[in-house]
Amino acid sequence: MTEFSLDPRLAEDSVGIAQLNLCIVRLRNDARFPWCVLVPMRPLISELFELSDADQTQLIHETARVAKVLDGIYSPHKVNIGALGNHVAQFHMHVIARRSGDAAWPGPVWGAGQRIGYSGEELMRNAQLIAARLR
Amino acid sequence: MTEFSLDPRLAEDSVGIAQLNLCIVRLRNDARFPWCVLVPMRPLISELFELSDADQTQLIHETARVAKVLDGIYSPHKVNIGALGNHVAQFHMHVIARRSGDAAWPGPVWGAGQRIGYSGEELMRNAQLIAARLR
Repeated sequence: MTEFSLDPRLAEDSVGIAQLNLCIVRLRNDARFPWCVLVPMRPLISELFELSDADQTQLIHETARVAKVLDGIYSPHKVNIGALGNHVAQFHMHVIARRSGDAAWPGPVWGAGQRIGYSGEELMRNAQLIAARLR
Repeated sequence: MTEFSLDPRLAEDSVGIAQLNLCIVRLRNDARFPWCVLVPMRPLISELFELSDADQTQLIHETARVAKVLDGIYSPHKVNIGALGNHVAQFHMHVIARRSGDAAWPGPVWGAGQRIGYSGEELMRNAQLIAARLR
């Protein structure tokens, strides 16, 4: 039986902050945007419709939960969610707190400019802040 | 009581093709990408987490259903889904069939270049094709 393992390209440039019932949650190390990525712990899934109905339900509830946490912490103008997978096929859902005037506003964050890493302290602080509210 | 009405900016440049239990489905008139937009028929919703749990569940199942229909018709390399709302606050979910080498590949479609309308016949043909499979 094939087991779930996180695609190394999704692990890159992000840190693990929580494990929910279906998804692992990672914080992308990009100081320009508060940006989480949820990855369902199921092997060989690249499209939403390949998840079972029950997993789809769990996914959307976990996505909404992360979105609400980011909204609560960062008071963004808008939360963006998206599952593209044009670069990395393993299914993953982005949840990004968008501020009017941020580095990509009002366009999408994907493919916009270059990532700017947090300082080590800021990365830890944001990761802990989000993780605490997801508990 | 406030009633649902479709934001005119979402109605623009698209045609209605189906009404599911929660969402209306529209086909964007952009011949570059097979691109549907789902709008939950609920007033005053701009964020996913403002929908009830039951509506979130319905939304993801309807999103997956549309994604699977587009996948079946167009055999894309990848289906992209996303709810951004940076321009139009009314909650809406995009479902786009992406072909490797299409006009925005591998980037996101949002904000990429200019819309290219279908011919009237091609618009009708694609709308009917998708609508028939959603029935």
